[in-house]
Amino acid sequence: MLILGIDPGTTSAGYALLENQANKLKILAADLIKVNSPKEEERLEEIYNCVRNLIKDWNPKMLALERLFFTNNQKTAIEVAQARGVILLTAALAGLKVYEYTPLEIKKIVSGDGKADKSQIKKILGLTLPDVKNLKAADDVFDAIAVALACHYKDARLTAFKI
Amino acid sequence: MLILGIDPGTTSAGYALLENQANKLKILAADLIKVNSPKEEERLEEIYNCVRNLIKDWNPKMLALERLFFTNNQKTAIEVAQARGVILLTAALAGLKVYEYTPLEIKKIVSGDGKADKSQIKKILGLTLPDVKNLKAADDVFDAIAVALACHYKDARLTAFKI
Repeated sequence: MLILGIDPGTTSAGYALLENQANKLKILAADLIKVNSPKEEERLEEIYNCVRNLIKDWNPKMLALERLFFTNNQKTAIEVAQARGVILLTAALAGLKVYEYTPLEIKKIVSGDGKADKSQIKKILGLTLPDVKNLKAADDVFDAIAVALACHYKDARLTAFKI
Repeated sequence: MLILGIDPGTTSAGYALLENQANKLKILAADLIKVNSPKEEERLEEIYNCVRNLIKDWNPKMLALERLFFTNNQKTAIEVAQARGVILLTAALAGLKVYEYTPLEIKKIVSGDGKADKSQIKKILGLTLPDVKNLKAADDVFDAIAVALACHYKDARLTAFKI
């Protein structure tokens, strides 16, 4: 089972493809989608094309996304929600099942501690996924890996793990 | 020049197609897109399909949208922003030019008064557009007509109107 985890932002989005083969977890790809167009509708089109290509190239069956909560910056929140709408649409058009988790759920599922900070989450990701141990990437990429891993543990795993 | 005005909501979206032919303004179609799917990604897919079909059937060149401001209800705001992202994407994929206006701008352009209430706006729409005079429709449909008309006056009209 292949899971696509995405962490959308306003001018970029982290993504990760997590595979569970014979009970071995592996990150097949993880990177940042960068969008550069000056117009918001063109940035959304860029995100759509990138996510569509990722789905076409890798054929994941599940999309894992963080549930959105609003910050004080409404402009940012609106832009992230618009990007999120486009990502949800792209997954729906390709027939992926969508799974969503709150930030607290993700931290709790991945590390056992809903209050874990970013460095703790990074550390536990490195311990769980050898590919991630020496990965140099933006925070959004680690967030995408974390949400994909949460999806694996909570909704996709075939064998029993103690969380 | 044909303008597609859309007013997105969480479970529906008003739309209006405004044509200016030989300086005569005409509403070619105005209705409510209703989305019923239980899953949010499927509701977004419904909106995408409806807007894509509208564009295919009518071939508008411009999309007019109200600029989004956030209310106290964050859940609603996120859902509206997600729908808005999908509408912007659909327009971009079809090559439409996108125009956005604040609610105050729309009221001011359409009625001359940025503080006009809904009934005043409806009245002025009926005076400007004979097709709208006896229209029975949801508020979102009138909002879609208003944003299309604002786009006509501000960005699409070929002849000089006094606003």
